[in-house]
Amino acid sequence: MTNADQPQIDSKKKRVVVLGTGWAGTSFLKNLDTTLYDVNIISPRNYFAFTPLLPSVTCGTVEARSVVEPIRNIIGKRKGDSTFWEAKCVKIDAKGKKVHCLSDQDVNSELKEFTVDYDYLVIALGAQVNTFNTPGVVENCHFLKEVEDAQKIRRSVIDCFERASLPTLSEDGKVKTLHFVIVGGGPTGVEFVAQLHDFVSEDLVKVYPDVKDLVKITLLEAGDHILNMFDKRITAFAEEKFHRDGIEVKTGSMVFEVNDEAISIKDRSSGAVSSIPYGMIVWSTGIGTRPVIMDFMHQISQTNRRVLATDEWLRVDGCDDVYAIGDCATINQRKVMEDIMEIFNKADADKSGTLTVKEFQDVIDDVCERYPQVELYLKNKRLKSIVDLLKDSKGNRERESIELDIEEFKNSLSEVDSQMKSLPATAQVAAQQGLYLARCFNRMKEAEENPEGPLRFRGTGRHRFHPFRYKHLGQFAPLGGEQTAAQLPGDWVSIGHSTQWLWYSVYASKQVSWRTRVLVISDWIRRFVFGRDSSRI
Amino acid sequence: MTNADQPQIDSKKKRVVVLGTGWAGTSFLKNLDTTLYDVNIISPRNYFAFTPLLPSVTCGTVEARSVVEPIRNIIGKRKGDSTFWEAKCVKIDAKGKKVHCLSDQDVNSELKEFTVDYDYLVIALGAQVNTFNTPGVVENCHFLKEVEDAQKIRRSVIDCFERASLPTLSEDGKVKTLHFVIVGGGPTGVEFVAQLHDFVSEDLVKVYPDVKDLVKITLLEAGDHILNMFDKRITAFAEEKFHRDGIEVKTGSMVFEVNDEAISIKDRSSGAVSSIPYGMIVWSTGIGTRPVIMDFMHQISQTNRRVLATDEWLRVDGCDDVYAIGDCATINQRKVMEDIMEIFNKADADKSGTLTVKEFQDVIDDVCERYPQVELYLKNKRLKSIVDLLKDSKGNRERESIELDIEEFKNSLSEVDSQMKSLPATAQVAAQQGLYLARCFNRMKEAEENPEGPLRFRGTGRHRFHPFRYKHLGQFAPLGGEQTAAQLPGDWVSIGHSTQWLWYSVYASKQVSWRTRVLVISDWIRRFVFGRDSSRI
Repeated sequence: MTNADQPQIDSKKKRVVVLGTGWAGTSFLKNLDTTLYDVNIISPRNYFAFTPLLPSVTCGTVEARSVVEPIRNIIGKRKGDSTFWEAKCVKIDAKGKKVHCLSDQDVNSELKEFTVDYDYLVIALGAQVNTFNTPGVVENCHFLKEVEDAQKIRRSVIDCFERASLPTLSEDGKVKTLHFVIVGGGPTGVEFVAQLHDFVSEDLVKVYPDVKDLVKITLLEAGDHILNMFDKRITAFAEEKFHRDGIEVKTGSMVFEVNDEAISIKDRSSGAVSSIPYGMIVWSTGIGTRPVIMDFMHQISQTNRRVLATDEWLRVDGCDDVYAIGDCATINQRKVMEDIMEIFNKADADKSGTLTVKEFQDVIDDVCERYPQVELYLKNKRLKSIVDLLKDSKGNRERESIELDIEEFKNSLSEVDSQMKSLPATAQVAAQQGLYLARCFNRMKEAEENPEGPLRFRGTGRHRFHPFRYKHLGQFAPLGGEQTAAQLPGDWVSIGHSTQWLWYSVYASKQVSWRTRVLVISDWIRRFVFGRDSSRI
Repeated sequence: MTNADQPQIDSKKKRVVVLGTGWAGTSFLKNLDTTLYDVNIISPRNYFAFTPLLPSVTCGTVEARSVVEPIRNIIGKRKGDSTFWEAKCVKIDAKGKKVHCLSDQDVNSELKEFTVDYDYLVIALGAQVNTFNTPGVVENCHFLKEVEDAQKIRRSVIDCFERASLPTLSEDGKVKTLHFVIVGGGPTGVEFVAQLHDFVSEDLVKVYPDVKDLVKITLLEAGDHILNMFDKRITAFAEEKFHRDGIEVKTGSMVFEVNDEAISIKDRSSGAVSSIPYGMIVWSTGIGTRPVIMDFMHQISQTNRRVLATDEWLRVDGCDDVYAIGDCATINQRKVMEDIMEIFNKADADKSGTLTVKEFQDVIDDVCERYPQVELYLKNKRLKSIVDLLKDSKGNRERESIELDIEEFKNSLSEVDSQMKSLPATAQVAAQQGLYLARCFNRMKEAEENPEGPLRFRGTGRHRFHPFRYKHLGQFAPLGGEQTAAQLPGDWVSIGHSTQWLWYSVYASKQVSWRTRVLVISDWIRRFVFGRDSSRI
C-alpha cells in the first residue's frame, strides 16, 4: 500500500475528501465554494448519472450517454482546486482520518491501492441492491442501479426476442423466453414495467411480428399494493391500467428462490407455493448497506444499526468531521422525550420548577426547529401552536395562567415522537442534503463566530447551523402510454397525459448540464419520430 | 443437433440463405426482390453497422447507436417473407446444401445448434482481424472491426487518462499510460490516429489539464509510407500534418511481439530492435480469412488459396448455387492466356486458321467484357482499341489487311494479364457486389431464357449475366482537425477543409436509413456545440 503523494497547494486550506459522485456527492460539489477547501473526490464512476431516467435507458427511450455528465466537467467549471480520482473506497479509517482506496484499473497490483488523508470527510457512497439473501438472485437477476445495469437490461430484452425467434425453440420455450418478471412494485419497478410494455407494444411488435403474442409481463410485489408509498388513488389507477394493458400484477407474492429456469414465489395469504418459468428477471426491491459502510459502522460502534446514522446536521454520530449524505445514511432525529428534562430546565428561566406559557414561548421556535416532529404532530392534530398542546393537557383554562410542572410537561409532549419518520431514499433527498451540507461548509467560519442554529438544550449557546430540513417537492410515477401519476406537496394528485408533460418538463429542467438537457430532449423527440432502436448494442 | 422446423411458405419458391449482415449482405437484402424467394438471413449481429464511421465512434464524435440499423427494420420494409435468425454459421455443408448454425444465446446447449437447408447460399461473412500470428497481439491489443470494439476503445482511452491521473503513478508510469500506439498505417489506422489526436487536443486537455502534456501518439507502419494505397500527394500531406501535430509516424517498423508492458518492433532497414512501453494499442493491419470460410475452402478443394475465390459472377469456384460477396472472397479473374485458343477459335468464324480484323471486331465487345484487364491494358498503353494492339504486333500496316495466326495473336495479347488486380476490401466493393448479386437474383428467370452476358468462349451460347464490374467512386482519408484527403476517380486529389465538408455530405447521404442519418448529423452538431463526452460509459 502506498501513501498518496498529496499535493500541499495551500497548507492553510482544510482538505475535504468526498466519496461518491451520485446525487448527494455531485450536489455537494456543485454548491461547495471550492476556493475555501482543498477538495478531493474519489469514486469508481467518473460521471454523474441522472438515475431517474435509468428506466428509460433500459428500453432505449433515452440513451445511456444522455443521462451522464463527466464529474470532471462539473468540478472543472468551479474555481479553486479540485482533484478527481477514479477509485473505490474500500475502508474508512476514522481514527487515522484517512480513507483507503483501490483503483479498478488494470495496473500493477502494488499501484492499485492508496490512502488519502482528510480533514473533513463527506461520505456519499449510496447504497447497494438488497437481495434479502434470496438464493439465486445475484446469479440470475438484473438490477437497475447503475447505467451499466440499464444497458445490460436493454441488451437482454432484445436477446430474449432474438432467442424466441430462433427455429430451435418449442412454443413452450418461446413463451418462457418472452416472460419478463419484475420483482418489486416500487417506483423503479413500476416505471420499468411501464417502459417495457411500451417498448414491446409500440416498437417490438413491428420488428418481431411472429412472437409478439407470446410476450408476458409479470410484476411481483410482496406487499398488498404496488406503489404503496403513493396516494391510494395513484395505486388504484396504476393497478387498473396495468390490468388493462395485460400486465399481470401479483401482490402479496414473496420470492424465496430463483434458479436459471424459474422463479419460486409464495403467496402470503394462502401460503401457496409456485414456480414460474421466466425469460428475464429485473430485481428492484429496495436498497441495502454497502460493506465499506458496514465496516465503518463497526469502527464507530454503530453496531446495532442497519444504516449509518447521522445527526440532524448530517454529521456521522460519534465521529467528528465525518459527514454522510444520500442513501448511505439516515438522520437519527433526536427524540423530544430524550431531552425533555433539558428542555424544561432551559425554558424555566426563573428556575421556579414550573413552566409558564410566557416562559415557554421564548423557546418555542428553538424547540420546533430542533425537533421537527413537534410541528408535524401539531399539524396532524390540527393544532395551531404548541401552546394549545399544553393547554389541552391542563383543561380549558385561560392561556396566560397555564403553569406546568415537569410531569405535566412530559405528559403533554409524550405523543410527539411518534411522528418521526425517516426520509425516503430518493434523489431529491440526496440532492437537498448535498446542497445543505455545501452551504454549511461555505459558511463554516462565519457560523463558528455567529452560530445561527437553534438553542443547545444540552450545553450552552446555539448550534452552529440550522439543522437539515427536507422539503418534499412531489414524486412522479410514470405508468406508460404517455401517462404519468404525480403526487405533489399537499397531497395533490395528478394523473394522465398532462402529468406526462409535466414529467417531461421537470426532468428536462433538472438536468445537470445543458449538454445532457439537449441530449435527453433530442432523445425524446427521436423516439417520437423513429421509435426505439432494437439493435443488440 | 436439431434440424430446423423449416416453414414451407411457398414450396415453389427457392430458399435463399444469406450469411452475414455487413455491407455485402445488407446491400444484397436491400436490393433483392424478396417476393421471388424464401429468404433466410443468419448473422450473430442483428444490425447493420456503418463501419466507415467506427473510427468516429472510438472517440465519441459519433455515438455507437447512430451507426447501426436493425436488420429486421431493413428486411421488414421489403415485401415478401424474410426471416432473420441471430446465430453464427459454424459450418457450410456444400454437398448437403445446408449450413450449420450456433446461437450465441444463453439457452440449453442442445438448443444452440441448428441446420438450415438452402437452394442458393450467399456468403457475406466478412473477414477477421489479421494478427499475422504476432505473439501477444490478441491478448493485449484492441481491434477496430466491430461496434463493440469501438466502444471498448473509447472506454479504454478514458481509462488511460483516469489511470494517469491517479496519485499512485510515477511520472514514468504516467508517460507509459498515456502512450497510444496504433499499428497499421492504412485508412482505418490513420483515421483513428486523427480522431484520437482531435479528442485529446480539443476535449481531453480541458478535462485532464494535469496530464495533458504527457500524451503521446505513435503510428507504426511496416511499409515505407502510411496510406500507401493513396496518391503520393495525400501520403505526403498526411505525414507532414501528423508531424506538425506531434504524432510520431514510424514507417518501416515491423511489430514482432507484444506483451502487457511493451510493444517490440524491428526497424526494417537498420534491423534495430526496440521495445516501447505503451498504455494502449490499436491493431489495424489488415484482414484474414475466417475459420468457417477456411473449412469451406477445404471442402471444395480451394486448398492452395488464402481467400475464397469466386468467378466474375461472384459464384464460388467449384460450387454451384453458392455465392460469396464482400471481404470474405475475391474474384478470380480469368486470364486471357488461359482461354487464348478458345478466343481465337471463336473469333475465327471462317475456320481459316487465321484471324482478320473484321472477324476479330465481331467478338471485341465480348472479349473486353469477359476480360476487363484488356481494357485496362489498352488504357495504360494509351491505345484506342484492341485492333491497335494487333496492328502493333504486325508493324505499321493497313488495318483491313491485318491477318494473324494463333502465335501472332497470342503474342499480341501476352502482356494483357499483367493488368489484373484484385479489388480492395472496402465497404464500397462489398455494397456494389451485394447490389449486383441482388439484381442477378431478381432477373434469374428472364436471364435463363435470354442470357445477357458475353459470349462463352469455352462452350456455346452466352453467359446469363454481365460479369460484376467494380466502379470506384473515390476514397476518403480523414486526417483530423476538420481536414480530409480524398482521392476521386480519375486520380483527382482533394485535401483540406472543403473536403471535410464533402466527407460529411457523402457519409450523411450514404446512411442506410433516415433514422441513422438524423442521428449521425445530430451527433456531429452536438460535437461542435458541446465537444465529446469523457464519461466512462
